[in-house]
Amino acid sequence: MPGVRGLFIPGPTNVPDAVRRAVDVPMEDQRAPDLPAFTLPLFEDVKKVFKSRTGQAFLFPSSGTGGWEAALTNTLSPGDKVLAARFGQFSHLWIDMCIRLGFEVDVVDAPWGEGVPVDIFAARLKADRHHKIKAVLVPHNETATGVTSDIAGVRKALDEADHPALLFADGVSSIASIDFRMEDWRVDIAVSGSQKGFMMPAGLAILCVSQKALAQAQDAQSRRCYFDFADMARVNKDGYFPYTPPTHMLRGLRASLDLLFAEGLEHVFQRHHRLAEAVRQAVSAWGLKLCAAAPHWQSDTVSAIYLPDGFDSNAFVRHAYKAYGLSLGVGLSKVAGRVFRIGHLGDLNELMVLTALSGVELTLRDQGVPFTAGSGVAAAIEHFHRTQPAQLAKAA
Amino acid sequence: MPGVRGLFIPGPTNVPDAVRRAVDVPMEDQRAPDLPAFTLPLFEDVKKVFKSRTGQAFLFPSSGTGGWEAALTNTLSPGDKVLAARFGQFSHLWIDMCIRLGFEVDVVDAPWGEGVPVDIFAARLKADRHHKIKAVLVPHNETATGVTSDIAGVRKALDEADHPALLFADGVSSIASIDFRMEDWRVDIAVSGSQKGFMMPAGLAILCVSQKALAQAQDAQSRRCYFDFADMARVNKDGYFPYTPPTHMLRGLRASLDLLFAEGLEHVFQRHHRLAEAVRQAVSAWGLKLCAAAPHWQSDTVSAIYLPDGFDSNAFVRHAYKAYGLSLGVGLSKVAGRVFRIGHLGDLNELMVLTALSGVELTLRDQGVPFTAGSGVAAAIEHFHRTQPAQLAKAA
Amino acid sequence: MPGVRGLFIPGPTNVPDAVRRAVDVPMEDQRAPDLPAFTLPLFEDVKKVFKSRTGQAFLFPSSGTGGWEAALTNTLSPGDKVLAARFGQFSHLWIDMCIRLGFEVDVVDAPWGEGVPVDIFAARLKADRHHKIKAVLVPHNETATGVTSDIAGVRKALDEADHPALLFADGVSSIASIDFRMEDWRVDIAVSGSQKGFMMPAGLAILCVSQKALAQAQDAQSRRCYFDFADMARVNKDGYFPYTPPTHMLRGLRASLDLLFAEGLEHVFQRHHRLAEAVRQAVSAWGLKLCAAAPHWQSDTVSAIYLPDGFDSNAFVRHAYKAYGLSLGVGLSKVAGRVFRIGHLGDLNELMVLTALSGVELTLRDQGVPFTAGSGVAAAIEHFHRTQPAQLAKAA
Amino acid sequence: MPGVRGLFIPGPTNVPDAVRRAVDVPMEDQRAPDLPAFTLPLFEDVKKVFKSRTGQAFLFPSSGTGGWEAALTNTLSPGDKVLAARFGQFSHLWIDMCIRLGFEVDVVDAPWGEGVPVDIFAARLKADRHHKIKAVLVPHNETATGVTSDIAGVRKALDEADHPALLFADGVSSIASIDFRMEDWRVDIAVSGSQKGFMMPAGLAILCVSQKALAQAQDAQSRRCYFDFADMARVNKDGYFPYTPPTHMLRGLRASLDLLFAEGLEHVFQRHHRLAEAVRQAVSAWGLKLCAAAPHWQSDTVSAIYLPDGFDSNAFVRHAYKAYGLSLGVGLSKVAGRVFRIGHLGDLNELMVLTALSGVELTLRDQGVPFTAGSGVAAAIEHFHRTQPAQLAKAA
Repeated sequence: MPGVRGLFIPGPTNVPDAVRRAVDVPMEDQRAPDLPAFTLPLFEDVKKVFKSRTGQAFLFPSSGTGGWEAALTNTLSPGDKVLAARFGQFSHLWIDMCIRLGFEVDVVDAPWGEGVPVDIFAARLKADRHHKIKAVLVPHNETATGVTSDIAGVRKALDEADHPALLFADGVSSIASIDFRMEDWRVDIAVSGSQKGFMMPAGLAILCVSQKALAQAQDAQSRRCYFDFADMARVNKDGYFPYTPPTHMLRGLRASLDLLFAEGLEHVFQRHHRLAEAVRQAVSAWGLKLCAAAPHWQSDTVSAIYLPDGFDSNAFVRHAYKAYGLSLGVGLSKVAGRVFRIGHLGDLNELMVLTALSGVELTLRDQGVPFTAGSGVAAAIEHFHRTQPAQLAKAA
Repeated sequence: MPGVRGLFIPGPTNVPDAVRRAVDVPMEDQRAPDLPAFTLPLFEDVKKVFKSRTGQAFLFPSSGTGGWEAALTNTLSPGDKVLAARFGQFSHLWIDMCIRLGFEVDVVDAPWGEGVPVDIFAARLKADRHHKIKAVLVPHNETATGVTSDIAGVRKALDEADHPALLFADGVSSIASIDFRMEDWRVDIAVSGSQKGFMMPAGLAILCVSQKALAQAQDAQSRRCYFDFADMARVNKDGYFPYTPPTHMLRGLRASLDLLFAEGLEHVFQRHHRLAEAVRQAVSAWGLKLCAAAPHWQSDTVSAIYLPDGFDSNAFVRHAYKAYGLSLGVGLSKVAGRVFRIGHLGDLNELMVLTALSGVELTLRDQGVPFTAGSGVAAAIEHFHRTQPAQLAKAA
Repeated sequence: MPGVRGLFIPGPTNVPDAVRRAVDVPMEDQRAPDLPAFTLPLFEDVKKVFKSRTGQAFLFPSSGTGGWEAALTNTLSPGDKVLAARFGQFSHLWIDMCIRLGFEVDVVDAPWGEGVPVDIFAARLKADRHHKIKAVLVPHNETATGVTSDIAGVRKALDEADHPALLFADGVSSIASIDFRMEDWRVDIAVSGSQKGFMMPAGLAILCVSQKALAQAQDAQSRRCYFDFADMARVNKDGYFPYTPPTHMLRGLRASLDLLFAEGLEHVFQRHHRLAEAVRQAVSAWGLKLCAAAPHWQSDTVSAIYLPDGFDSNAFVRHAYKAYGLSLGVGLSKVAGRVFRIGHLGDLNELMVLTALSGVELTLRDQGVPFTAGSGVAAAIEHFHRTQPAQLAKAA
Repeated sequence: MPGVRGLFIPGPTNVPDAVRRAVDVPMEDQRAPDLPAFTLPLFEDVKKVFKSRTGQAFLFPSSGTGGWEAALTNTLSPGDKVLAARFGQFSHLWIDMCIRLGFEVDVVDAPWGEGVPVDIFAARLKADRHHKIKAVLVPHNETATGVTSDIAGVRKALDEADHPALLFADGVSSIASIDFRMEDWRVDIAVSGSQKGFMMPAGLAILCVSQKALAQAQDAQSRRCYFDFADMARVNKDGYFPYTPPTHMLRGLRASLDLLFAEGLEHVFQRHHRLAEAVRQAVSAWGLKLCAAAPHWQSDTVSAIYLPDGFDSNAFVRHAYKAYGLSLGVGLSKVAGRVFRIGHLGDLNELMVLTALSGVELTLRDQGVPFTAGSGVAAAIEHFHRTQPAQLAKAA
């Protein structure tokens, strides 16, 4: 198929050229004397993306799923209780992992389309007088439904219950794209991955861990070796790794951080919000509905969109791919066949959003979904025009 | 600026990943014993893109302008007369080159927006009883105005006048994108470049030369050395070059030809026509006018579009670039400030056209040009939907 | 530092250009309809490198260490007994992992410089009447000492004791470089990594697992999730992955396999042997001693070489790196400061071996180690000349 | 063929990774508003490599041969007389070009292995009372014989004769590797190319032109268009080009200049001298003879080496390539079959020189040339050891 493909899944995201070139390097001597001069500042800089000063960053060669496992096995012992909500495929999978790793999960089911039910969490935490709950799991951004949860709210619930449980956040599809405040919210472990907001190829789990969690790791009885924080920390301290690191990915991460810092994290978040809003305006213009049940749940990195009844979102996504090289996300599990997803995170700009929207419109047209062609694009254009940075408006 | 930039100028065009990777190779030994096994088939395969069996391909490290100079200096002697039409910036520049290289040019001025005036050419050729005209110059595709000329018509004019002049075609922005029939039309020298339909980086002039032109080259008195056909042919015969060739570009050319042949030249042409038609439908929906004065002049590789009176196309193009990373072509010379151009050639597909069109719409909106936002995109979508390949319609 | 660096550590190895370009691709849609057409043959082809027909390949985004963990946790239950020998840093680490993951290890210590003591293993297995030993661990190639062990011998010991224990092999620094016969030797799990014989960047654990081990995995009680065979197998069956795969690495693996098969596995092994022999000839000419205690232990992928008493191999390796950009392996653990290592595996040829050897000679000279400069290179040259392929000798 | 190939021809040279990555970029908008911010400093910085402050740099998409043509046609008129020496294939070709472009050449033949005969030049210039000689051509480095000429000497001869002729230098295989002093020597046009000391892919002629030459260009009657200085200068002034520039090559040039300046030009020259001396020590140890007739002629970028009588250097070079992927230069024209050449310029270091030397030794052995294997490598090692930078000796 000629031409550039459109990658608008909620990750892996589009790798910017600067990162791609940074990754495209010869392999390096993992024990080179000058490696620490590169890695030590990298470890420090990663933390800035999490807005953590006192935490410690960990880079594991794995997917984000490996990062979840690292968080759990390093801090918990078999039989430990965790509090978690299930309202999408990824919150489901994390819970499933907890069970398989031997933890007891206090599952709070919530509607798919809503986020963590903070009130229920607050109640459970208050009720947990004996502090059986050792950790609270919050998917900052549920990728399956396009829902962002209120971590600050969960922190408040913990504080009000005076509860010592660790607070874990799955920020795989949010960190580096949506504001995340490790320190302010006193998150204990935040898990992310290379292939979303970090704009890199897949293959690196990126974590930030609080001192409290590190302390707790010393007593945790879960068996672990590959994902062990202590092994990693001991060798990272000198700038090296306990096993062969993917140095090319570390070079890519350096380039990614440089891009993020050059733009400025707050600008990165604003950009994501502005671009996401354009997608939402388009969805509304098409007469379609988001999976996210209310504006405050709407994610700035991914939108899950219901097709009208009678249309199969799997066929929709397949046609977009086959006919136009446009990759959209399918609906997963409970919403399979009913929603399709547009990923709008990472190395993204107005033109790319317009590409996604016009590609979706073309697919809607081909699939016979009733809508006014051009309406979504027009809505996005209007939004972009109205919100364009002042200096550009003047320059024009 | 985050995100992918939109390159929709009429060249350089977007380099497909396969070509880009093919170009990204270590330098090679230009005298290696196994080089001819690579170059000799390459020379033959290049000719297929020109639809030439009996001609000879030449690859000069230069821009397309160098290719023009090669065509002229290898076949003409100072004082020789050439017949040429001027109806755009590139036809103008070729004429200017003729004059500077010492040839006498019989210039036929035509309106910018029309192509070669075949009738006038026919008359001039008939009138030229003594065959003073040694060559007829035809810009197959005038990149400045988005106009395709009728080479077959010029050939017919030559034949009907029984005129022995050489026929030169500038196919820099047409060959490999628009049907070009070197052999059928008995074109004597066709000039192209790497950075348009060949989807490569700039830096390689690609020519095809008829046996008639090669024979004439033996007597041509124009001084030349770098661009000498004979030097090149003598060494090319064995698979080598008279001076250091850019072997990485030759590797890229191989990848480009492989892509073109895999798609099939006729399919490549149909694709360009379908995509160009979408652009034209959008222009019409916007209520704007093409520079090309009539449908049969409309180019399938570039559209030059008039902004309404009172709007400055330079400011328009500048804003698109600065605000959105969208590169469009400016108006050149006579139409400067009045037209902007969309290049729609090379490694292009529906999504990319929609990107260009929605980006133009956003710019129109920002610049206050009156139009209905979404209308152009909608027209293109309707066109794509209506003309989608049968097997895809079924698959959906 | 100008110029190409010399990477002659025992992994990561030099990534051939074809693999590097294959890895340098845009991220892909991990759920694309056409992904299985790529992945399913890839899974099958990987097995050929292990010489397995009936096994199953697994590709985990992790280092080789993760592969070890996958092997253990998928097939064993806490408290299970494993038989393992310790004779180098990597055999030590694997044993250490076993202990930390809750297995009981019957450790057989052997001299560093020798391989698995097959006789002792045979005795232990015979003595284990109640089949308490559930798995036997064999490092096919101990990277720290440059020693290759006799897996066929261990298999024979198992058979002669009629022992049902699983046979695990660490082939991280051997597979794809040294002959490995999964099926003939009835190895149950073989672990390798991307960054050695597979000539890829680090980041992919590559395993092959027998049906017997897969069956046993159903009852194994070790807790696991990320590295779970069943999860992976269930989704791999359809060509997909249970979590985001590093598709660029899969593309690289395809290119790697294509290179290996084009050369022919047996030719790959012969090449490694011939190149390794040149290194050993040089070591002998320098008057230095290999760590490998006898010829049948000598590894064809890495040579660990003792410096004379009084010389510090850490300083030696550091000087080579700082002065000449030459990366050699340091001595690890017991042999730290005394040996340096030359990795001679992966994408390697005669010129590269000569680079390593002459670089070592230059470093020996700088460090004041007594030897005859040029002697090692001369020995290698003589070896290469004597063993050059017949057709080349004739061609010359 | 597995492994890295050895490219030791006198150009194209090895492209450093930083340059290769800089070249591997998407095509750019050649008329982008922000292009001048990149190109204008680039034009200025290029001049520093020529050690010119008052001259003007020109970058033509062509090989170095195109640069020669640009120099001649922009400043001379047909029939003009030039003074030139012939003592190698490239000095021969430049003279041949002069003749074909219509100039009268006063050819001074000198032995192949010597450089420009300054005394004879001085005599001719003095004898030229009427200043018929308009330009003096000096190949700074004759690539065919490995001979560096004395430009300062020629300048002195011009000055002593009080002769106004322009001074042209072919620095294709010297500039950026050997000290070149445009301003001190009052060279009027210096020609170089991208693929040698500039460490880039082939395809860019790089010139520096004095104000005197630019002034003279206004009256020169040679017909030219593609290579016209005035066209180029007029558009370059604003940061653009008169025809499509290979922007990816300009990005590569930026990276190349950054590398050269980071190392420091004087250090670059010293490095080339030290590395070249190692090659010469090896040649001497082998008992072979350089083509360069005396030490002061010896080039620091390429060594042409005679094989003993009875050995065919073409077969030698062919064997090195076919058996070991080692590219050496063949003997050209008069010395064809008798010399082979080692290019030692550009992105080169000690390890790479040792690669070339040990590869040559292996080839000598295979071809049966009598010599002591290891002797050349040993000589180079001794040289490198003796001349290693003080801080490294200490560090060790």
